[in-house]
Amino acid sequence: MTMKKLINSADTLIAESLEGFASAHADIVVLASDRSFVRRRNLRPGKVALISGGGSGHEPLHAGFVGLGMLDAACPGQIFTSPTPDQMIAAAAAVDGGNGVLFIVKNYAGDVMNFEMAAEIIEGEVMRVVTDDDVAVEASIFSTGRRGVAGTLIVEKIVGAAAEAGYGLADLKALGERINSRTRSMGVALTSCTVPAAGKPTFAIGDDEMEMGVGIHGEPGRRRVKLASADLIADEMVGSISGELSEKGDVILFVNGFGGTPAVELYLMYNAARSRLEQRGIRVRRSLVGSYVTSLEMAGCSITVSILDEEAVKFWDAPVHTAALRWGA
Amino acid sequence: MTMKKLINSADTLIAESLEGFASAHADIVVLASDRSFVRRRNLRPGKVALISGGGSGHEPLHAGFVGLGMLDAACPGQIFTSPTPDQMIAAAAAVDGGNGVLFIVKNYAGDVMNFEMAAEIIEGEVMRVVTDDDVAVEASIFSTGRRGVAGTLIVEKIVGAAAEAGYGLADLKALGERINSRTRSMGVALTSCTVPAAGKPTFAIGDDEMEMGVGIHGEPGRRRVKLASADLIADEMVGSISGELSEKGDVILFVNGFGGTPAVELYLMYNAARSRLEQRGIRVRRSLVGSYVTSLEMAGCSITVSILDEEAVKFWDAPVHTAALRWGA
Repeated sequence: MTMKKLINSADTLIAESLEGFASAHADIVVLASDRSFVRRRNLRPGKVALISGGGSGHEPLHAGFVGLGMLDAACPGQIFTSPTPDQMIAAAAAVDGGNGVLFIVKNYAGDVMNFEMAAEIIEGEVMRVVTDDDVAVEASIFSTGRRGVAGTLIVEKIVGAAAEAGYGLADLKALGERINSRTRSMGVALTSCTVPAAGKPTFAIGDDEMEMGVGIHGEPGRRRVKLASADLIADEMVGSISGELSEKGDVILFVNGFGGTPAVELYLMYNAARSRLEQRGIRVRRSLVGSYVTSLEMAGCSITVSILDEEAVKFWDAPVHTAALRWGA
Repeated sequence: MTMKKLINSADTLIAESLEGFASAHADIVVLASDRSFVRRRNLRPGKVALISGGGSGHEPLHAGFVGLGMLDAACPGQIFTSPTPDQMIAAAAAVDGGNGVLFIVKNYAGDVMNFEMAAEIIEGEVMRVVTDDDVAVEASIFSTGRRGVAGTLIVEKIVGAAAEAGYGLADLKALGERINSRTRSMGVALTSCTVPAAGKPTFAIGDDEMEMGVGIHGEPGRRRVKLASADLIADEMVGSISGELSEKGDVILFVNGFGGTPAVELYLMYNAARSRLEQRGIRVRRSLVGSYVTSLEMAGCSITVSILDEEAVKFWDAPVHTAALRWGA
């Protein structure tokens, strides 16, 4: 079976896509000449520098969240492969204004190790927040402990706004860890993704099957089951997520597409998830629906619920001006 | 083969998706109680009312473009099926403040006929702009003359901003027709979409084939060809588009995903298209990359190029606050 993608070659895909991204959004970002990171064009003196990154194939995460009110830099690895410590060191050198650097890292072994190595080498002060919002599995082939998935967007948005507002490094780390602890996600895949360098689907799946609890690299979730209705899928996902929430309260409901699922289905899933949350007495106060944390062209979606307090609402609503998220600016 | 979609049933898909859309974006839109249209929540007295609509399955088009600086209402039909005249009449009654109504209609026989019937019945003054930006074919199974595709977004954005700025009905019609005449698009599909009520792919396509010049309902384009590299695809699409542009000048370059293609590929296509335009002396002054005018979950993309003058730049840059496009507001 031929791989059906709009590419020239697996070797040049990331470079060409980054070039396109940087020229389409040249008002917001700058791509490093060796393409090792994307940074915010207009750095703001005096603020703590926020840096994230990870394997490519999850676009717009993370480069699409670089800009005012969110990240200062993002380091893209090859598809589903951690960026290297030298990328993070170069990014920090480009955006650290002397007020410290906060790394926001999804909990995968390669990312955690490489950001840690970079932190040891960087001379300025560096702290990190590790996201692990995925309730589907307790550990996975790429992670010890829970995986960091779409909830990472919420951590980056809220911590990014707090950094813009002048929070110091330790306070940003504490805020990020608090938001992460109140943010829970779960995903489902209807089809596999195909990593271009592999040239074949990451996993085999029957025409009548779905992977419940899938990871954002197409790695296994809880179990392979027969296709079910959107309502039954939402029952399991919302049930699992709300069982893991540490408290009740108003929430952000974020329905995230994995890359191959159109908006008409995501809004239907949002509707199903929202009614199930409301049945549990959980009020949806903010909403986000779209394909923001993807797995190449995988069909499916994740649901993320994040408990809000007034500080989190204020920073969620604060101005953001990035390629993929923009409001108030 | 089972259809792989996040739905409950084909019969309720549009209703459930509209409910989700309206509750996720309740700050911007209101859904009519019979779900016949989506209207802007905060109507602006004194302005001409802009109404569009068409078959569902192209989301976020058109409901995602309802709001400040763009549409006042959108009428969704069933999947790939025109809305009915009574939907348009109800929408006009809800949003017409007495300054006239402009219909923005994609050139498909059903849409053109139904908007025309509605215009005859509405008592206030009604004019229309019919978009036909697709250069792929001269006529199609659903259209006499060229099809209206992703360029419709550009017409809705620019005319929407002009309406917000106080333009009168006849001037808006003239502006819309001028923008449409300077806007050209072409698409390519790598896979078919599947209409839920049909339950099987709209067209058969080999594992090593693509449909060059495809329409946004999966209808045939110019020809079925072997899969090619992104560069060769961009050569044909940009060549066809630029051959149909009436003049040279600065442009908007809009790379649009059809629903099943992830951002990493769209930015690569943007990069390929941009370099080919620049080789022809065409300067890309504004850019848009994303899945805005979709064909359910079809994999592929379209390229749209729209020639800019100073009036068009001003209205493109003007504030917009809708579910799918937002800047400056």
